[in-house]
Order: sequence, then C-alpha cells, then structure tokens
Amino acid sequence: MSEFFRSVAAEVVFDPARAAKVDLFRGRALLVGLNCFERGQSQKIHSHAGADKFYLLIEGKARMTVGDETRDVEAGTVVWAPAHVPHGIVEALERTVMLVSIAPPPGPKT
Amino acid sequence: MSEFFRSVAAEVVFDPARAAKVDLFRGRALLVGLNCFERGQSQKIHSHAGADKFYLLIEGKARMTVGDETRDVEAGTVVWAPAHVPHGIVEALERTVMLVSIAPPPGPKT
Repeated sequence: MSEFFRSVAAEVVFDPARAAKVDLFRGRALLVGLNCFERGQSQKIHSHAGADKFYLLIEGKARMTVGDETRDVEAGTVVWAPAHVPHGIVEALERTVMLVSIAPPPGPKT
Repeated sequence: MSEFFRSVAAEVVFDPARAAKVDLFRGRALLVGLNCFERGQSQKIHSHAGADKFYLLIEGKARMTVGDETRDVEAGTVVWAPAHVPHGIVEALERTVMLVSIAPPPGPKT
C-alpha cells in the first residue's frame, strides 16, 4: 500500500448498524478520513473544543446542520464546522459518503 | 452567502497564467481551499515545516509527487503530504481541480 496515496472508493465501508468512520491519514496536526452513511443514518449534533473541521460530500445527499443553518447537501459541497460550533448530520437522505477532516486530530479512543 | 456551506463548482477559478488557489474556509487550526490547474500547469515541489496537508483530486488527472512516490492521480484519490515531506504537482495531465487542506494554516501572505 502506498504511504501517501489512497483511493476513496477502495476505503468506503458501510455498516447497517451505524454510520461508519474510516481514518485515511493522521498526522500530529491533521486527520483526514471518511464518514459513510446508509440512508436514514445520522450523526448527533456535537462540537469540538479548539478543533476546526470540515466535510466534503462526495456521494449521496444528506441533511446537515452547522450552527443555525440546516441544509440538504449534495456532492461537491464543503461544510465548515469551526471550533466550538455545533454540527451534525440530521439524516442521510441517500447512501452518502463524506470526506471529513479535523485539526488537531482527536486523541486515541479510550 | 452561507457562513458554513459552500459549493466547490461555484468557487472554481482557472488562470491561464498560473495554477489558481481559492481559500474556502480558514480557522485557527485548519485551512481548506481549492487548487485549480489548466492542463500542463504545475506546483513546484515544496514542504511545510510542522504543517500536515492533503489533497483530494475532485476532477481531472495530475502527476503528483510526495516523498519518493510519483503517481498519476485521478478523481477520488486522497494524497497525503505530512509535515516536512516534499510534495508537488509535476504536471496537470488534464484540467484539474483539487480540494486542499493544511493544518495549521500558513500565515497571511506578506
């Protein structure tokens, strides 16, 4: 496997039980991965203290909330979720794949 | 204009004189934008001290180098350029649009 090049299509994973997350690359300052949703799956509204985040919707359609804005988002939309601002996926309206990136990365899961 | 939602297609800019850059969103920890290349345009090999970066090729095809790897990259490929590792675009083989993100963001241009 390449150290620096990775295909999104080869990494996508769907889980019928819950929205699926895939880490692609992680450095000290930046994490990039995928969030994959079956139709109807969601991501609870949450915020990150001190970490900026964005999503790029690659495939599908999802109702997303950031701050006071809620929109139905299609492929090619970048969604910015800056530090401290609540954000989440109300519902995936189709099977949906998002690139997601956060800086700095969250600590290892405990 | 939305504070949090932006369409890549609406932001793409090409410049026949040089590769074009567009900032989409910038926070204290993270910058996300676009790099847009006409066929034949390039980005000199360079590195960032202490900043992690990645590209996602959205449209087109480009010959890219990171470290010792050089690949012809198509849409849907994530290219990881971690801190201190030299990287660049040898040549856009078609008109090409990349999402690019770096953390922490570079300082304002002087």
